[in-house]
This record gives sequence, structure tokens and C-alpha cells, in this order.
Amino acid sequence: MVLFSTAEYKARLKKTKESMEQKGIDVLLITDPANMNYLTGFDAWSFYVHQLLIVIAREEEPIWIGRGMDASAAEITTWLHKENIIPYSDDHVQSTTKHPMDFVANILETKGQANKTIAAEFDAYYFTAKNYMQLTKKLPNATFVDGTGIVNWIRIVKSEKEIECIKRAAKIVTKTMYEGIEKINAGVRENDVVADIFHQQIKGTEEFGGDYTSIVPLLPSGDKTSACHLTWTDEAYKEGDPVILELAGCYKRYHSPLARTVVIGKPTPEMEELADVAVEGIHAALDVIKPGITCEEVEMAWRKSIEKRGFEKESRIGYSTGLNYPPDWGEHTASLRPGDQTVLKPNMVFHMIPGIWMDTYGIEISETFRVTEKGCEILADVERKLFIK
Amino acid sequence: MVLFSTAEYKARLKKTKESMEQKGIDVLLITDPANMNYLTGFDAWSFYVHQLLIVIAREEEPIWIGRGMDASAAEITTWLHKENIIPYSDDHVQSTTKHPMDFVANILETKGQANKTIAAEFDAYYFTAKNYMQLTKKLPNATFVDGTGIVNWIRIVKSEKEIECIKRAAKIVTKTMYEGIEKINAGVRENDVVADIFHQQIKGTEEFGGDYTSIVPLLPSGDKTSACHLTWTDEAYKEGDPVILELAGCYKRYHSPLARTVVIGKPTPEMEELADVAVEGIHAALDVIKPGITCEEVEMAWRKSIEKRGFEKESRIGYSTGLNYPPDWGEHTASLRPGDQTVLKPNMVFHMIPGIWMDTYGIEISETFRVTEKGCEILADVERKLFIK
Repeated sequence: MVLFSTAEYKARLKKTKESMEQKGIDVLLITDPANMNYLTGFDAWSFYVHQLLIVIAREEEPIWIGRGMDASAAEITTWLHKENIIPYSDDHVQSTTKHPMDFVANILETKGQANKTIAAEFDAYYFTAKNYMQLTKKLPNATFVDGTGIVNWIRIVKSEKEIECIKRAAKIVTKTMYEGIEKINAGVRENDVVADIFHQQIKGTEEFGGDYTSIVPLLPSGDKTSACHLTWTDEAYKEGDPVILELAGCYKRYHSPLARTVVIGKPTPEMEELADVAVEGIHAALDVIKPGITCEEVEMAWRKSIEKRGFEKESRIGYSTGLNYPPDWGEHTASLRPGDQTVLKPNMVFHMIPGIWMDTYGIEISETFRVTEKGCEILADVERKLFIK
Repeated sequence: MVLFSTAEYKARLKKTKESMEQKGIDVLLITDPANMNYLTGFDAWSFYVHQLLIVIAREEEPIWIGRGMDASAAEITTWLHKENIIPYSDDHVQSTTKHPMDFVANILETKGQANKTIAAEFDAYYFTAKNYMQLTKKLPNATFVDGTGIVNWIRIVKSEKEIECIKRAAKIVTKTMYEGIEKINAGVRENDVVADIFHQQIKGTEEFGGDYTSIVPLLPSGDKTSACHLTWTDEAYKEGDPVILELAGCYKRYHSPLARTVVIGKPTPEMEELADVAVEGIHAALDVIKPGITCEEVEMAWRKSIEKRGFEKESRIGYSTGLNYPPDWGEHTASLRPGDQTVLKPNMVFHMIPGIWMDTYGIEISETFRVTEKGCEILADVERKLFIK
């Protein structure tokens, strides 16, 4: 069940420890499920209860802590030795009297780490305020510092094997996007289109199957295209409706997201213009990508392109993506936006999604790309245009 | 787009404010997406960025705060007036320099709440340690107290309209479970079965469509049935494999979960015995349910039943369910376990899932039930047995 070689996991752990050392961190607590997976392979839908990895700078292996019934998932999916998989008893779950972080604090004490500098991912999903309060209360002699993003920033450059996973995800999203576009028609219920989209996402290809995506398909339609993160209803599409499809393919937790916009029937001139502006802008932004350029320079190319046409857009136009769990397939590291001076390197992967939303309509056309030695490689293979049904 | 009447939302808000008053709370910050939806109708996949509701005891309407691009989703899906939908600018998103809670603190200051008693859901999903740190730093004169579960405990008794939604979800899960059981066969890839399950979940019925479930279908098979929260692979099922299906139907965010176990070919005598013990135990536990009985008494009936057969199980055997968002369809209130003295009332809904996991195999058979005036009503309609293919 373990996806990568133990050597690859150990190399990731080594980089993590190097980063910890630079920051003067003795212990790193990891609750972000993607970071837990990245370092150990751990893969189960158990992040709805408290769980974490303890990375101790001076110990070879991380320690997995989670609910008793999930310990066997850790044994099956990780490279960790059994003695480093430590379950807590079930009466810690959603209890008002026993908190899992009390258990974690005890383990840290046993391991001689109670007076050390301990980092936790303060702003990561699933590291709650209560986690912080319990840990600081139980370990008054430890120094707590923010470890948000430490592993995320290591994840930003992918290995060849990871790129292979993302390319499989891109094959899935290509098939899925065409499936969705084909099924959207006047009189068809939104949820019936989404049912076919899910089916294709999980079916994958003959060669390999699909995994669940960290965000469900987003399909706002009609006036609701101004609201990009709506899901779907069971109403039927009407003639003239614009429909945004933002979805991903996923292979073994690696994502390749993609967005396209469809109009059922004749698009308004405004919509046609918006699509034209978006496609031109994406082309301009992709054109400048190569190793050495910064994220904000990529955004600037887009900004200049759409400004010429009289448009502006406040939000970022993309973000690093890859391995992830709900609720996000974004990596929470580099963003394509003003002020982000992250320098692009080969095997970084971004979802460039410069949606433009007006008051009552909007458009999304996106690409996921890999930075190559000389430029970039578009991963999915779907025509970059406004689709007319 | 708003699902319930404004009167129903206002009644929920009133109960929330009563609970706040009892606890001496002036302001309640709500980050749990299910609680946000419960009070306002807000429904979008935007919980991957910081967002929250502010409930001020002395003000009539809650205030929604979220990312700029999600404000239109709040306008579309909630009963709130536009002036109470306050977006923050996009440069707050996953930034290391600007945090959305700084923006929230400013709003609280403007509203004259900076020196009040402010509760936040300290242990809820998406209320990170960083949220707490930023708020307490920016509002040094406020008193912060734990508001975890305040709205959840109001959600535990459902309205008739909510029960109607859950019953629709139960119709979906009934169809979906039979679809999954039918498709599981030796030689079929796991992901192909899951593709059909997703398809049925979202397609729903002719009358109404399905929504995404807060947990994806869980289908551990073979030896992996000992690990209940594994998802699926793209390997083919083999003759003799046991397969657990834990899934839900969902209608407009309301869930009806269900688990069954299938064996492809001849089950081992151990597996047959385990199924028999589980079915008998569930029957015993369901038999004692009626208003006035406590959660721990329900668990005791199960415990006594399986003890007679020489089995014991450490984990809780069920939990309150209904409205929810990823990563959980459990409500984080009452659990069917020792020590839980919650008294059952009509229109509470529980998922009773007394899985039994041995070292290398396990079984799950579950029911979702509504507490009625005199007993309980089983919501799905799937034979309660070990399925043999």
C-alpha cells in the first residue's frame, strides 16, 4: 500500500529536519493530512478526529498518534515501524473530559521533549485553538513556535514519481472535463451532470483508477456563476445558462485541477468578450513562465494583458498544487499574485485559475502546469476556450 | 436558494442567543460550516479559507465574514441582509503578513464588542490556533471563552423539515447501498464500484437530486477491513474478500449514513459469527430506544448482548448526525457510549454503527434512526445482514 520508496520518504524527512534545524525547532507536530501523508504515506479518512505526527529532530522515525481504530490504517499505509504507531483510547473522541492533546503531551514528556522548542502548524486545518491550549497547559516548560508551512514548502518541488502521479490525475481530469461539457444541456438536471463527473473521476482510465478530489466539483450556473464556490442543485439547466466547471482529477491524493466555462446556446457579447480576455491573459501569463521568474512576475503578465482590455481582478490567479486532502487541493505556499517573490523551479506545479467574476456573471478558464527546465508544460489536454452547447 | 423559512432560521438564532445568555456570552464566533449553515443557510465550498459568523447577543442578525469572492455565495444562499455580509480582501488568503482574524477583530471593534465576553468554537474544524492567537492579540480587552458545541447542541433535535431532508437522504443511501453491493464482484476494480456508488449518491431519485456526503465512501476490503477509515484502491476484488461499505446519502447537506459488509464467495465461520453477533447486538440496542432513555443505556444494551457471545468493543457505537460538511457527518454532541447521559428526545437522529474490528478482519453493520414519540424509526431500508456474493 505504501506509494513511494522508504528512501523517498526518508529524503523528505531529512529535508524537514534540516528546515527544523535552521529554525531552532526540536519537535514538529504535523496535523495537516497532506503533510502527514508526505512524510509517512498515511492515507485514511481519519482526519475528522484529532491525529498528528511527531517529528523529533534527534529521533530517526516520526511517531503517528491517532485514534485506536485508525492504528491499523497507519500500519497498512505507512513505512513506520509498529512501535511508532501509538493510538489513543476511544474515550478521547469528541469528549469534553479527555482531549487527545493531553495524550500527545504525555508522549512528548515520555520522550524527554517536555522542555524543548516545539513547533506546531498553528494555521493548518485540524490544528484547533483547543489543541494549542491543551498542549501549552500540559507542557508549561516547552517553548511553542509556529511551524505552519514547513513541510508544505518542501512539497512545492515534486519528485519525478510525484509528477507521474499528477500526470495521471491530468489524464483523468481531461476525460472528466469533456464528460461534463458533453452532458451539460438544457433540460438536464445539474446533479445528473455532476453524477457523471464523479463517475468519470473515480473510474479513471483502464490503466489506473481515480481517487476522490479534495474539493468536490464546483458547478455554479446562470446568475450564480458570480459565486465561484457554489456546488450544484437539482434544477435543470436552461437555454442561455452559462455554467462554470471547476474540478480536478486525482490519483493517489495527487491533483490536477482544471476549470472551463460552458454556455448553453448563444453567449452574450459580454460573456464572449470576458472569455476572450481570459484566454488571452492566460496565454500571456503562461508565456513568461520559466525557472528563475517569480510568482508575481507571472501575475503581472496576466494583469498587463487584461488591463489593455479594460479589466482588472483583485484576487490571486493561481497557487501551488499537488498532494492534498479536503478541504483544499491548494498547497498553501506560493501564490501567483503581487508581492509573492517565490522563484519558480523545475517540477513546481501550479493551478493558474484567473477567474473573472462580475456582479451577475463570471468566467473561469484555467490550466495546471509543471515548470520545466526551459518553460512550462500544460498537464491537461482540453481546448482553452468558451464552450458553446 | 434558501432552504428553510426565515422564521425557522430566526428561531434557531433565538435558541443560540438563549444559550449564549445562560453562559454569559456577548459574542459568539462560529467557524464550523454546519453551524454557519444552520443559522443562515450559507452553503458553499469556501471553508478552505477562513470565514465565520459573528453572532452578537444584542444585534438582530449575524454577520458573515469571508473572502471577497465568496460574498456573492452568501448573498445567494443566506437570509442575511447585504450589509451583514462583509468580505475581506483577497490578499488575506494564505498570507504570512495579513490574517483574516485581524479583519474580524477590526469589525468587532467597530461594532463596540472589543471589551466583551467573546466565545469561539475552540475545538471546531477550521478554528485554528492561529485564529485564536490573532484575535486575542488584537482584542486584549476582550474575554475569550470556549463556545465549542453551543450550536451543535441546538442542532441535535431536528425540525420536521429537517427530518424530511434526512429521509430523502435515507432514500438515496438505500438505493446507493444496493447499487454498491450489486457491483462488488471478484475481478471488478474497487474504484469502479465506488464510481457507481458516487453516481447513485449524486443522481439521487427522479424526484430529487443528491448532494456530496461529508465523508467519501469508505470501502476497505480483504485484510484491510481491520482498518475502517480506508477509502479504496484500483485493485480488483478477489474471491473470498470481505468488503465493508460505509457511506451516506445526502440531501441539501443532510445525511443518512449506513454501513453493510459483503463477502465475495464463502464467508469464514469467524466472519459469519461476527455478523451474527453484530446483528443481534444492534437489534438489542434498537429495542431499548425511546424518549427518556440515555445514550449510555443504549450502548449498555449492545454491550450486554455481545458480551453474552464473548465479544467486547472499546469504541462508541454511534453518534448524532444530520446537517454537515467535510470532514465529518457526525454532529459532535451525543455519543452512544458509557458515560454519555444525554437523554433521547423525539426527532434526534443517530447513526448506530457498532463495528467490530479484529486484528485482520472486521465487520460493520449500521442503522440511522430517528427517535420517535414511542421508540425509533429506522430510516434506510436495506436488509440487516452479512451480504454474500
